[in-house]
Amino acid sequence: MASNPAEAIAINARRAFEASQLVPASERDVALTAIRTALSEQRAAVLEANKADMDAARPLVEAGKLSASLFSRLDLAKPGKYDSMLQGIADVAALPLPTGQVTFAKELGPGLALHRVTCPVGVLLVIFEARPEVVVNIAALAIKSGNAAILKGGKESTQTATLLSRIIGEALGQTQIPSTFVQTVSTRSEIAALLAQDKYIDLVMPRGGNELVTSIKNQTRIPVMGHADGICAVYLDESADETKAVRVAVESKIDYMAACNAAETLLVNEAIVTTLWPKVANALSAVDVTLRCDAPTLAALQGEPAASHAQPSTAADYDTEFLGPEIAVMAVPSTAEAIRHINAHSSHHTDAIVTEDEESMSAWARGLDSANCFINASTRFADGTRYGLGTEVGISTGKTHARGPVGLDGLVIYKYVLRSEKGDGSVIADHEKGQGYTHTDLARDKPPF
Amino acid sequence: MASNPAEAIAINARRAFEASQLVPASERDVALTAIRTALSEQRAAVLEANKADMDAARPLVEAGKLSASLFSRLDLAKPGKYDSMLQGIADVAALPLPTGQVTFAKELGPGLALHRVTCPVGVLLVIFEARPEVVVNIAALAIKSGNAAILKGGKESTQTATLLSRIIGEALGQTQIPSTFVQTVSTRSEIAALLAQDKYIDLVMPRGGNELVTSIKNQTRIPVMGHADGICAVYLDESADETKAVRVAVESKIDYMAACNAAETLLVNEAIVTTLWPKVANALSAVDVTLRCDAPTLAALQGEPAASHAQPSTAADYDTEFLGPEIAVMAVPSTAEAIRHINAHSSHHTDAIVTEDEESMSAWARGLDSANCFINASTRFADGTRYGLGTEVGISTGKTHARGPVGLDGLVIYKYVLRSEKGDGSVIADHEKGQGYTHTDLARDKPPF
Repeated sequence: MASNPAEAIAINARRAFEASQLVPASERDVALTAIRTALSEQRAAVLEANKADMDAARPLVEAGKLSASLFSRLDLAKPGKYDSMLQGIADVAALPLPTGQVTFAKELGPGLALHRVTCPVGVLLVIFEARPEVVVNIAALAIKSGNAAILKGGKESTQTATLLSRIIGEALGQTQIPSTFVQTVSTRSEIAALLAQDKYIDLVMPRGGNELVTSIKNQTRIPVMGHADGICAVYLDESADETKAVRVAVESKIDYMAACNAAETLLVNEAIVTTLWPKVANALSAVDVTLRCDAPTLAALQGEPAASHAQPSTAADYDTEFLGPEIAVMAVPSTAEAIRHINAHSSHHTDAIVTEDEESMSAWARGLDSANCFINASTRFADGTRYGLGTEVGISTGKTHARGPVGLDGLVIYKYVLRSEKGDGSVIADHEKGQGYTHTDLARDKPPF
Repeated sequence: MASNPAEAIAINARRAFEASQLVPASERDVALTAIRTALSEQRAAVLEANKADMDAARPLVEAGKLSASLFSRLDLAKPGKYDSMLQGIADVAALPLPTGQVTFAKELGPGLALHRVTCPVGVLLVIFEARPEVVVNIAALAIKSGNAAILKGGKESTQTATLLSRIIGEALGQTQIPSTFVQTVSTRSEIAALLAQDKYIDLVMPRGGNELVTSIKNQTRIPVMGHADGICAVYLDESADETKAVRVAVESKIDYMAACNAAETLLVNEAIVTTLWPKVANALSAVDVTLRCDAPTLAALQGEPAASHAQPSTAADYDTEFLGPEIAVMAVPSTAEAIRHINAHSSHHTDAIVTEDEESMSAWARGLDSANCFINASTRFADGTRYGLGTEVGISTGKTHARGPVGLDGLVIYKYVLRSEKGDGSVIADHEKGQGYTHTDLARDKPPF
C-alpha cells in the first residue's frame, strides 16, 4: 500500500497510534516497565554496540572532523550513565498522565454534556543529536503521553540507537501497545521523505539549532516545534543591585556556555555605565570573558581591570550566539529601549532584567516577547527540570502550541466529546427552535469515557 | 527599513503588537467601544461602500461567475445585519479576558516564584471569505485577545472591507492601542509576500477549505491554523435506537448542507442493514437526499420508498464533501471498523455515533482521531457558539495548538515569568550546589506583574 519506505514507516506509526488509543492508558506504564527491564537485561549488548559507534567515531575526532565534546556525549559506558538512563524511564513512568484531563466541561442542555479532554497529538517525528540515551528518553516521553514516535538520532550513534530501538520494540511487543509505536530511522534521506508524510505525521520536533529548524520548516507542511538555540540577554536597569547584577550576569554567561539559555548580550542602562557597569565588567573579565562593547560601555572601562578583556563591538555581535567566553555589551537609555532591542535581536528564548524598580519589572514581564522573562534571576533557570515540569522534550521558541521548556503537557492536544443521554438523541433543532442552550459548567473531575 | 510593502505592513503590525503589550489590558475594551461607536456613526458611509461592492458583483452573478449565496453574504444592508455586527463587538468586549491567566505556578525555592501566564500569540494573518462583517468580527477577537492582525477578505468585498478597516484604525488612534494594530490588505499578491514574513508574523489563519489551507502551508514557514472543510460521518451501531438514528442522521445531513459540520458519510453496522437502515434511508429520501450505497446497503432498500433515491456508490464517494443533498453509505462489521474507516477517510472534524452500548461509546471517544467525537448527537453541534465558547474564530482540524471550534483561548499562548525576591538575586548554583529546588505549588489567582 505504501509507495516508499518512508511512507510505510509513517503508516505503521499512524496505525500503531490509532490502535493504542483503544488500549487503557495504564498500559503505557506497563510498557515503560517492560522497556526498562529489557534494557537492563541487555546492557552488555547495548554497550557493545556503543563501543562500535565509539570506535568508528574515534578516527573522525583524531582527524578533527568530530568535536571531542560530541564524542564524549556518545559514550554510554561512562560511570552511572546507563543506570541514569534506566532511572529516567522510571521517572517518566512516575509522572502524572498528561492525557485524559478535562479542561472544559459544559452542559449544553438537559442530558447533553460536552467535555474537552486532553489526548495525544498523534505521530511525532523527532530529530536529535548523537546522544544514544536520548532515544530512550524520547521514547519514554512519547509512550507516557500516548504519542507514536519516529526517531532519528545523529549518525555517529546509529548502531547504539538501532539496537536500543529494537529492544524497545521487542519490549512493546510483549504489551498491548504495538511494537511499531516507536521506530527509528538512520539516514538523512529518510527524513526528507518522512517530511512529506503530512497525512500520517502530526508534529516534527527538530532538536539542534535554528539552522536545522529553518531547513525543516522549509521542507514540510507538518507543524514544526522548534527547539532552537538561544541568543539570551541580561539587562542591568538603572536601579540594579550590585550583588544581584554580578551574580546574574556572571552565571548567565559562564555557567554552561554551550547551553541555549546562556547569555550572549548584556544591556546596561546609560545611568549606571560609569558606576555599576565597571564592577560587573571586572567580575566578567576575572572569569576570562571577552567584552565586546559599544563606545559608551568601552569608554567606561578605561583604567579598570576589565579593560584587558574589552574591545569594540560590531553590529553583528548583537545578533551572535557566541556559545563561548564572549559577550556583546551595549548601553541603552531605558527599560523600554532594552525591551525593544531584545525583541528585535534575541531569539525570544530567555532574557533577564536586574532591577529594584516595580515598574521596570512589570514592563519586562509584559513587554518582552520571550518564552522566559526573568527578574533578578539567572537565564540558566530556563529548563524543564528546574521548572519542576518533571522532564523536558526540549525548549520551544515558537509562539504556538507550546513555548519555553516543553514537558509532557506540550505533547498533548484535546478533543471535544459530546454525549447525549436524551431519550430521542440530541439535535440542534431542540435548542435553536426550542429550549435554547443552558451552558452551565460541569465538574471537570473525570472524562466521560 | 522595509524592503517591500508587505514587509512594511508586517513590521508595522509587529511594532503595534509590541507597543500594545505595555498598555493595560483594560484598554482593549475601551478600543472595542470606540470602534463600535465609530461604526455606528459611519453606518451610511459603510453601506454606501457596500452598495458599490454589490453593484460591482451583480454583473458577475448574472454572468454566472459568482454564486448567488456568495452575493447574498456580501450584503451588509440586510435587515438587522449591521446592528448585529455592532452587537457582536459588544459581545466580544463582554467576554472574559483570555490573557493574563496563570496556568502553572511554582515556588522554585524561597523567594523565587515561577508563573506561567497566558499572553497573545503576537501578529495574526487572517484570510477569509467575502463577508464584510467578518472584518469587524476578527478585528474584535484580535483586539480582545491582544493580537495584532493583518486581514484579507474576499476581493468582492474590498471597498467595504477597506472602509471598515479605516474606521477601525481611526477609532484605535483615539486609544492607547496603535492604529496599525489592525490592518487590511486587498490583493492576493500581498498575501504571497506576507507569507514570507515569518520574522514578524506568528500565525496564519486561512478560513475557506482544504485547498486554501494546503496551498498556504506550501508557501510559508509560519504556523498555519487550518479552518478546513469537513467530511463528517454518522455511524449507526448495532444497538442504535431508531428515533435517535433518524433524528441524528437527518439533521446532520440536511440542516445546513453547505456547512463544514454537515454529514457526508453514513456508516451502518452490518447487523442492522435490513432492520434499522431502511427506516433511516426512508427518512433521508423523504427529504430528498440521494443515497450513494455500497452493495449491502443498496440491496436492503429493494421495495422500500428510499429505493427511488438510492444508487450504487463509487470508491471516491467516501472521500467526497458533497455539500448538497447526497450521502455516501457503507456497511461495516463493527464499531472498530467504523472508527478505522473514519480515521482514514474523514477530515478529522466531527463524527457522530448512534448507539446504546457503553463499550462502543468509549471506543468512539477514545479511538476516533477527530476534533469532535459525538455520541447520539447531531454533527451540527460542532460550533463555538453552541459550545458556549462565546464566539469562534473558526474550526481547526489541525492537531496542534487549538482544535475544533477555536474561541479566544485558541489565540493565546503563554510565557514563563520567573521573579526573585532574594536579597542577592537567584542563580542556579544556589540550588544545585546547595539547597535544591522546593517546587511547591503557588496560588494561581493572579499574575506576578
